[in-house]
Amino acid sequence: MAKSVLVIGGGPAGLSAARALGRLGVPTILVEKDGQLGGNPIKNHYHTLIPRKLKPSQVIGPYIKEVESNPNIKVLLNTELTACEGEAGSFKVTLSNGEKHEVGAIIVATGFEHFDPRRKGELGYGLYPDVITNLELERMFSQEGRLYRPSNGQLPKRVAFVFCVGSRDRQLGVTNVHCCRYGCALSGLQGMEIREHYPDVDVFCYYMDVRTYGTWEYPFYWAPQEKYGVRYVRGRIAEITYSPADGRLRVKHEDTIVQRPSEVPMDLVVLVLGMEPSPGTKKVAKILGLAQDPDSQFLIPSDESGSNIISNKPGIFIAGACKGPIDIESSFSEGEAAAAEAAAFIGAKVTV
Amino acid sequence: MAKSVLVIGGGPAGLSAARALGRLGVPTILVEKDGQLGGNPIKNHYHTLIPRKLKPSQVIGPYIKEVESNPNIKVLLNTELTACEGEAGSFKVTLSNGEKHEVGAIIVATGFEHFDPRRKGELGYGLYPDVITNLELERMFSQEGRLYRPSNGQLPKRVAFVFCVGSRDRQLGVTNVHCCRYGCALSGLQGMEIREHYPDVDVFCYYMDVRTYGTWEYPFYWAPQEKYGVRYVRGRIAEITYSPADGRLRVKHEDTIVQRPSEVPMDLVVLVLGMEPSPGTKKVAKILGLAQDPDSQFLIPSDESGSNIISNKPGIFIAGACKGPIDIESSFSEGEAAAAEAAAFIGAKVTV
Repeated sequence: MAKSVLVIGGGPAGLSAARALGRLGVPTILVEKDGQLGGNPIKNHYHTLIPRKLKPSQVIGPYIKEVESNPNIKVLLNTELTACEGEAGSFKVTLSNGEKHEVGAIIVATGFEHFDPRRKGELGYGLYPDVITNLELERMFSQEGRLYRPSNGQLPKRVAFVFCVGSRDRQLGVTNVHCCRYGCALSGLQGMEIREHYPDVDVFCYYMDVRTYGTWEYPFYWAPQEKYGVRYVRGRIAEITYSPADGRLRVKHEDTIVQRPSEVPMDLVVLVLGMEPSPGTKKVAKILGLAQDPDSQFLIPSDESGSNIISNKPGIFIAGACKGPIDIESSFSEGEAAAAEAAAFIGAKVTV
Repeated sequence: MAKSVLVIGGGPAGLSAARALGRLGVPTILVEKDGQLGGNPIKNHYHTLIPRKLKPSQVIGPYIKEVESNPNIKVLLNTELTACEGEAGSFKVTLSNGEKHEVGAIIVATGFEHFDPRRKGELGYGLYPDVITNLELERMFSQEGRLYRPSNGQLPKRVAFVFCVGSRDRQLGVTNVHCCRYGCALSGLQGMEIREHYPDVDVFCYYMDVRTYGTWEYPFYWAPQEKYGVRYVRGRIAEITYSPADGRLRVKHEDTIVQRPSEVPMDLVVLVLGMEPSPGTKKVAKILGLAQDPDSQFLIPSDESGSNIISNKPGIFIAGACKGPIDIESSFSEGEAAAAEAAAFIGAKVTV
């Protein structure tokens, strides 16, 4: 039995797994394909995280710091898994930097990527500058500190959030049937942030179902409406067009409550992007022989365990958004859970 | 620093925490107020678990077996925490059986209880025998193996699921604003089970929003409708009455899509129960000084950490449904994550 663990992916789940292993004293190798740790929230400059409205630097920063400074953890940036031979207890892995290691267990935390809205041409992304993604809105807040229309730099009067772009969408085929799970709550938060700083800006959320599940109901569904005046409209958007006459966008939809088509002017449209398995997730699945959902291609756990971090391959554990949409806090928990599983798997025993 | 850990609660989160600690060799005390381990799924005879359609015995059984047989874990049934003095690293705890222990860390996994539907008198529970809860439907499936109307033992022709009973309900005050998180998916599953075994029984789901979030969208939203013919009706139920003329129930609601009141006959009505913090959760919060949400009374994590299993008290970790509605798989992960945190907190170092 080899006595070290390989963690693949340096986002929230992978950081959490590596941190927990390092704390316990398990020799750990963390590989991250990008040049920095932190995953999507850091790379994409998220502004404020749901549900506790903390900044990525507050939430993920301490994990990065601890992982980088723990001598039990070897961090390899710009590095990917390229091959794996052997079996549980003695995986012989080859990395893209040429290194070879023998590890007893592997934790896969290769995450997700956001849906490319150009695949929904009718929404006008890439065509009209005032159609932006919710990622771009996060960057506007976090990097530029103000809200504006890209077309003219002015404050918009009316902002629309279009939910479920690349999610729950069977027009895209079987790959994008799943729900993104974070979009309703994040849009509620972004809507509140807009209304807090720009009380004269009207904010509209176009939804199919509002999925602020569990304890997110008050803070991200009622508070946006009652404390900040964000307006919710039930309806799927058919098309977004541009009117040269007034330089504004037009949002065309059928209101599924009043059941009639509607076309309303907007100054800024924010597309709420779905989540798909990252290229790294698909690649690692092939190398390691991990089971994937035939439709979404997300990793799926073993049929035989009640725990969803146990993969179909003994000694390989799966954590975070490589298995489907998940919030950051749950990714942290799954990373630590995978660390506990991996430590037990390699036969680690503590001295207390 | 005391070198053992106290786990409070023997449901999925507590079992998972104790199992992980025991595997690593950390001396662990698990207290459970009831006479058996397994929590609500075992006590209430759940039939099939979402999302992977496994039986509680398959999912939770192996955890119970391992916890009971691991010599590092002392299981105390019919036992509660009654007092705690000292501080992190040296908590001096008193149990209801009179035992006193010194532990270095505490994991709280005291769970939830289901909403009492008698608090919604207009739904007729306790008054009409054919108004049952989704827990009673689970027991009907798991213990009796057949579907019937309690009033006459006959197979119902029309079954209605009423979503959000005790959830998302501001008529109940601030305590029940949150969403139960499991109800939409479980009802989809129960609807499919009915239609699979009794294809002539019509099944209707009355919903506000269908919250089959993340990867639950196809298996618990589309499959019930398309593969099993379960019908979804958007609308909140105003009242359930009984018609002596035909011996059937009447479900009165406003359809919020066609926007008109409606009254339809049903033979069996299933109330989809919300989740509230268990009495044990509220009690332990008081004893340990844990922060609670002022509205729902669920435990809330520390403001200062990005991890939601870190409580406001150093050395005390919180996992599973004591913090709000959560699925069983995530409870397992949180339990293991709390174990990893607690092991690190007491300074456990592994020998590999």
